[in-house]
Amino acid sequence: MTDSGTFQSYMYGDINIDPYEIVAFQRDIGCDVGTILDIFGTPDQTKKQAKKGIDITIERAKKSINIKDSMKLACPVQGSIYPDLRTKCAQELGELNADFFPIGGVVPLMENQRYSDLIQCIIAAKKGLPPGKPVHLFGAGHPLIFPMAVALGCDFFDSSAYVKYAQDDRLIFYWGTEKIDELTELPCSCPICSHYSISEIKNQEKSSRINLIAKHNLYVSFEEIRKIRNAISNGNLWEMVERRSHSNPHLLSAMKLLQSKDIKNYLEKYEPISKKKALFYTGTQTLHRPIVHRSQQRVQSCFSQINKTIIEFEETKKPYSQTYSKQIQRIRKKNPLFSIIVKSPLGPVPIELDETYPFAQSVIPIDPLVEQNEYLKQIYHSFYKDATVVNWRNISSLSTISSSDNEYEDFDIRRIRYVADYQFGKGAGDILLKGKIRFVKSKKTGKIRNIYSDDKHVLSMRASDGFFTLKIEGGRLLHDSFLSPLIRVIVFDDAVSFIREGKSVFAKFIKDADPGLRPFDECLIVDETDSFLGVGRCLLNRAEMLSFSSGVGVKTRESNNI
Amino acid sequence: MTDSGTFQSYMYGDINIDPYEIVAFQRDIGCDVGTILDIFGTPDQTKKQAKKGIDITIERAKKSINIKDSMKLACPVQGSIYPDLRTKCAQELGELNADFFPIGGVVPLMENQRYSDLIQCIIAAKKGLPPGKPVHLFGAGHPLIFPMAVALGCDFFDSSAYVKYAQDDRLIFYWGTEKIDELTELPCSCPICSHYSISEIKNQEKSSRINLIAKHNLYVSFEEIRKIRNAISNGNLWEMVERRSHSNPHLLSAMKLLQSKDIKNYLEKYEPISKKKALFYTGTQTLHRPIVHRSQQRVQSCFSQINKTIIEFEETKKPYSQTYSKQIQRIRKKNPLFSIIVKSPLGPVPIELDETYPFAQSVIPIDPLVEQNEYLKQIYHSFYKDATVVNWRNISSLSTISSSDNEYEDFDIRRIRYVADYQFGKGAGDILLKGKIRFVKSKKTGKIRNIYSDDKHVLSMRASDGFFTLKIEGGRLLHDSFLSPLIRVIVFDDAVSFIREGKSVFAKFIKDADPGLRPFDECLIVDETDSFLGVGRCLLNRAEMLSFSSGVGVKTRESNNI
Repeated sequence: MTDSGTFQSYMYGDINIDPYEIVAFQRDIGCDVGTILDIFGTPDQTKKQAKKGIDITIERAKKSINIKDSMKLACPVQGSIYPDLRTKCAQELGELNADFFPIGGVVPLMENQRYSDLIQCIIAAKKGLPPGKPVHLFGAGHPLIFPMAVALGCDFFDSSAYVKYAQDDRLIFYWGTEKIDELTELPCSCPICSHYSISEIKNQEKSSRINLIAKHNLYVSFEEIRKIRNAISNGNLWEMVERRSHSNPHLLSAMKLLQSKDIKNYLEKYEPISKKKALFYTGTQTLHRPIVHRSQQRVQSCFSQINKTIIEFEETKKPYSQTYSKQIQRIRKKNPLFSIIVKSPLGPVPIELDETYPFAQSVIPIDPLVEQNEYLKQIYHSFYKDATVVNWRNISSLSTISSSDNEYEDFDIRRIRYVADYQFGKGAGDILLKGKIRFVKSKKTGKIRNIYSDDKHVLSMRASDGFFTLKIEGGRLLHDSFLSPLIRVIVFDDAVSFIREGKSVFAKFIKDADPGLRPFDECLIVDETDSFLGVGRCLLNRAEMLSFSSGVGVKTRESNNI
Repeated sequence: MTDSGTFQSYMYGDINIDPYEIVAFQRDIGCDVGTILDIFGTPDQTKKQAKKGIDITIERAKKSINIKDSMKLACPVQGSIYPDLRTKCAQELGELNADFFPIGGVVPLMENQRYSDLIQCIIAAKKGLPPGKPVHLFGAGHPLIFPMAVALGCDFFDSSAYVKYAQDDRLIFYWGTEKIDELTELPCSCPICSHYSISEIKNQEKSSRINLIAKHNLYVSFEEIRKIRNAISNGNLWEMVERRSHSNPHLLSAMKLLQSKDIKNYLEKYEPISKKKALFYTGTQTLHRPIVHRSQQRVQSCFSQINKTIIEFEETKKPYSQTYSKQIQRIRKKNPLFSIIVKSPLGPVPIELDETYPFAQSVIPIDPLVEQNEYLKQIYHSFYKDATVVNWRNISSLSTISSSDNEYEDFDIRRIRYVADYQFGKGAGDILLKGKIRFVKSKKTGKIRNIYSDDKHVLSMRASDGFFTLKIEGGRLLHDSFLSPLIRVIVFDDAVSFIREGKSVFAKFIKDADPGLRPFDECLIVDETDSFLGVGRCLLNRAEMLSFSSGVGVKTRESNNI
């Protein structure tokens, strides 16, 4: 990959170069990825200057595409620190036939630890870019910001920081940099630091000292990248981001941005429905993590209006329903209409969701209730609005309701109904439980496994995350009652025969999808006339499905062969 | 070093062994450090059982000392989870002529992540033990807890965890352990992880896989120890402890213990007066860090009662007095009696301390004011009690005071007075500024350097931390007015001639010292009759000076040769 000279002309003054000659040159020397000569937008620009810069950048991108031939072309998103300009630039570049989208003009932000501005620039650019194309954060060379940048959607980094720091006798670590003179020994196990003592490195002549420190800096940088890839694979990248943020007060302060509802709503769209590993609490920021935000939103929308009287349980050890099973049975029998809510540190949780991700699969000290007093108060307040809240210890004060319309409903049935609503949307429980219901529990764990409606297998509950796997008969019920595009992935006609054979759905065959679907969500696969083709598991959200030109969008589980 | 079999009998059942035979055996095979056969106190013991256990342990320690000969003897502190028993056991063992003090019975606490109990056990033991003797945390083998254990005063660790985890295919990292099967690549740069790919390790036969993982585990463990030693040397171990705590929810939760006033008062005694590096904010726990606690206490005791009217400045960029210099001059001229207080995230700070550690040397986002609302409110409330607080923007509403008794005092003089009070105790400023004052400022920085009273050099202000270096003439003034033992280190008569020659004060020659002295504090060196021998810098606090049998207690700066 080659750069065009934009950054060099920003650093070292004007260089006289023709913007198309440099693209042709990159093409002619055989670059895999070449870069257009964009206009570097500095943070101190006026909006007018920044606007002019992106106009020229977009113009050059358009013309450069015509001469790129088979070279992949990188078109940097500029726009200084103006989010609307970043998004606009990203959108216009995104509509071109470019291959690679660096986010440019951010080095001065990183040099001055303006991480809040950096985060805003990345998010604004990502909002405008096609999610199927790779994004490169130009000039990011310090591992301190790698986890955050990746969590926000950056895929590539480049930097000469490793050698520049080395020239200044500074060692890179994930928490910052350290001058070699301020270290008493080497706080690292990389092959350089394991082989040399600190005094051996200090006593090298300059050029070989630079060489050794530069190698250490690269080891540390690549180690961080491997940690990030592991975290992606284990679903705990946000944990890593939160933990890392405590390394640097400026980064920690910038994390506050991620508490804004607008940004949480954006990030939540790309968040998988569940993770391999339990949710770990790392501090106050955890309650604003995209998956926690989603949980709170879904509980609010599905369950806040159910009953006017709420019995509140304090959180103790999980699983809640086992801890309180006797009390819950008593309350249910006496007052079948009352909701039972656990006052969890993640927000209010109906007791029926106590095996559902992330409520059950989480490691959280009890303290957030204290630490996050104000925030959680708001969450509870909006949930409890218009309801009477009674602590379970005071339930004897309530009179018994004995309406023949509201008979005691089996707790397992309620669990199925609640999880279905939480997972597929309000009303799904009623749709799936319409027939004569029978279910099988695991002999080993006592947990619900397979659910049958009128003797048809409609759902299976996964032990790992408490969500349902949708069976073809369950899909049929949802398809009959939920209108398009709800929980649907709509495929082009030429893909239909493959799906009927049980083949997975490639993204390029997806015409549209429910914007409510999330990665790893269960979905209905339908054709352009909404004929039901099968059920499957999304690997992407809608925006990604529509943007990706290769790869699988939905893993088909069962196809509808009737 | 050898263990006695206590842990083995706890793990594998009763082993028939004579408590003194095993000590003699260790001695005879030539151990450097042998261990008595103590009684392992389990966390589930009743207090009575635990008490019986420590009684036997103490009894055995007493008898074992008689047979140890030249072998160093380790006497473990037991007492289950009862802090008073831990302290009692530590005190009684500490009075014996033992050499090494493990804290025992903690493995079950670590295995069950009962970090709050672990912290309490360590602190309770340390409170009873002589601070000059090494402390070993028995069986601590996971780097997750190394920084915390060291910060609380543990010096040694031992464990077979590195190989036990390896046998279970688990890799140790500073944030926890990971099963090799749950990793997609190796998130580490140690020589093992740099040389082998993850699949190469997975595909080894069992014994050589254990060998490789065990080596990785050791690399990681020793790397953490080196990081800790670097942090001690740079004075930022508490930063490291706080950052690490975010790796594990149980550890994070246990950190709340360190917010108790009792523990903060204990830890503050061992905290150096200033550090090489700026204070970094890592999260809410930072406001409870020992050095912050001290700052708040000292500001409270020195400055809360000065003036009834306080002008409050919001914090902006540092240094405060430069930011606001015009406003401050205006207020001072109009209302010389008013205190000017900056509402800092560390608590209230008189503007005169704006170059003093840690107020100036800190990197703190502005947010703690929000995040730590309740805690900081209390701090401000107790400081402001009985005072009228006016925001500096509203000062025009105040009437001008023009008393001839209260003339406008030069800001630099006020700074000297305030720093002296903050550093040496209330009243020190008046004592040191009694004569005709003259000072020299640095031409480069404009900061105060040397201070003369009646043309005698009494103080120098350090640019690095804004504290004073005490000159012999300043020492004389403080010695004349502050009564013994204030800011004194009292030496035995046989050390006097050495100190007059300018030699440093070895701990074993120290008879007593001011309990208010802290490591790196300036002090007066006096003999047993309180004759003034010189000024110096403490390397230890009083408890350490009296406990250490070797090493320097005070670095003499100038001796009094009159």
